[in-house]
Amino acid sequence: MLLYILGMIGIAAFAITGVISSGKKDMDLFSLLFLGMVTSLGGGTIRDVILSVETVYWVKDTSYLWVACLSSAFAFFTVRIIENRQTLFHYADSFGLALFTVVATEKVLLLGFSPSIAITMGIITGVAGGIIRDVLSHRPPLVLGKEFYATPAFLGAALVVLLEKNIPSHEFNSIYAVALIFILRVFAIHKGLYYPSWLLYKKR
Amino acid sequence: MLLYILGMIGIAAFAITGVISSGKKDMDLFSLLFLGMVTSLGGGTIRDVILSVETVYWVKDTSYLWVACLSSAFAFFTVRIIENRQTLFHYADSFGLALFTVVATEKVLLLGFSPSIAITMGIITGVAGGIIRDVLSHRPPLVLGKEFYATPAFLGAALVVLLEKNIPSHEFNSIYAVALIFILRVFAIHKGLYYPSWLLYKKR
Amino acid sequence: MLLYILGMIGIAAFAITGVISSGKKDMDLFSLLFLGMVTSLGGGTIRDVILSVETVYWVKDTSYLWVACLSSAFAFFTVRIIENRQTLFHYADSFGLALFTVVATEKVLLLGFSPSIAITMGIITGVAGGIIRDVLSHRPPLVLGKEFYATPAFLGAALVVLLEKNIPSHEFNSIYAVALIFILRVFAIHKGLYYPSWLLYKKR
Repeated sequence: MLLYILGMIGIAAFAITGVISSGKKDMDLFSLLFLGMVTSLGGGTIRDVILSVETVYWVKDTSYLWVACLSSAFAFFTVRIIENRQTLFHYADSFGLALFTVVATEKVLLLGFSPSIAITMGIITGVAGGIIRDVLSHRPPLVLGKEFYATPAFLGAALVVLLEKNIPSHEFNSIYAVALIFILRVFAIHKGLYYPSWLLYKKR
Repeated sequence: MLLYILGMIGIAAFAITGVISSGKKDMDLFSLLFLGMVTSLGGGTIRDVILSVETVYWVKDTSYLWVACLSSAFAFFTVRIIENRQTLFHYADSFGLALFTVVATEKVLLLGFSPSIAITMGIITGVAGGIIRDVLSHRPPLVLGKEFYATPAFLGAALVVLLEKNIPSHEFNSIYAVALIFILRVFAIHKGLYYPSWLLYKKR
Repeated sequence: MLLYILGMIGIAAFAITGVISSGKKDMDLFSLLFLGMVTSLGGGTIRDVILSVETVYWVKDTSYLWVACLSSAFAFFTVRIIENRQTLFHYADSFGLALFTVVATEKVLLLGFSPSIAITMGIITGVAGGIIRDVLSHRPPLVLGKEFYATPAFLGAALVVLLEKNIPSHEFNSIYAVALIFILRVFAIHKGLYYPSWLLYKKR
């Protein structure tokens, strides 16, 4: 149940980033609904298609589809009155990343897959929607920037696996992992947190 | 049967757009066959993979593969003699969009899915091939432009659902919906049809 | 067994290209692991998802996942000491293209699909990982350049089909086809091998 609600909030968060992301060009309502929905539903779709254990989640339960659609529409009309959209964009993106990574890792573990598959799938689910959004909006994917992005997702997914092994089904496991990812991302956004240079591949 | 033929024509139309789209750089015959085939087969492939009800259509019936391959080759040799390629590009793209959206919506309805899934899948099938083409050719995706694109696809898919509910299996249902999408797109191309500004998300 | 080893080497080769490809911007270890893994696992994932006959290969056998991860990490630390990275990039990419195309064509034939499906899937598997890498790194996809790329993949896949029909399960069949693709690509890189102009679609 908690996973379900967290998943829905993640969808709304990513839908908002899809709408803001497009801010560099004129786009109409339906194009933006499309971009918002692809951003928010894309990651989980790729996860379900690769695992092919169940029907893709939003085909099975169309509530996801409606939440993605309505939150994109809501964002379309409200986002324009917000001053600092770039900050909102990064916060919503980090929140979506945290929620999707954790929810997907939990879900894949519950389906009985190994920890390495669960962590990989968690990261893919967390970052794939944002990658599609960034490629379609002609911006370099956030995940491939210098600041912490893939790392928090990895650490959060690993924390889920660790907690589920030691204190299985504890109700706050997801919350801890979501908090870890989100806080690391907020530090990365505000402090430009990145690795020491020997763990960076420098541009030439 | 009508759906089958319309699907084939859609594949040919999208194959042509794939060939023209590449016109900004030198490309050889096989690269263009590849781009044409990805453009024309991509949308339906994504639809079938997400629904995972049947084998992907061109794996089951390789006629689709051959039509995509041969129409790309045909376009490769003939398109260069045409003066106004951009107009042809937009017309062929609109025609493919109309056909794929309608055929996919009908197909998904026939498979027993709900109207919201059918409309979503119709739109995805219609626009996905073009998106892949545009991303690979480094042009901004048509679907994310200011002019009507996602809207006609949505209206056409909705019309299919409406007609199938009220006059099921009427033989002209598909034709009406195809015409609606195509005509709206032609207006969008020639008159720059777009929404009033409060339904546009302005660039800043 | 030979196919298994060739597949693993192909994964390592593509992982290296993923790491080098990013060389235009600062990227951290985890972002590069992600890019390397997407590049090396992407093509086969798309193949398995489209055929949907078996579980995606790296979900079934996580050795692939670990090889992709470890060779990306290895490349991250070693590639920076190499002078001529562009040459290494193109060689590793050609080697990966050759191995993936051939291994996939063999695998799809063994699953009982027709030659046209096997050749198509071979080409898709060979080029898809590189396309994802190039799109994410904001470079024009190699496959859509003027030099031979799709053509060697096609010829190699066709050679596999031809050899398997005439001398089935001969142990060197794969080696011949890999050599054909790789040698054609090396010529294309060093001699700028491309088609006569009537088989090129000129930029305007």
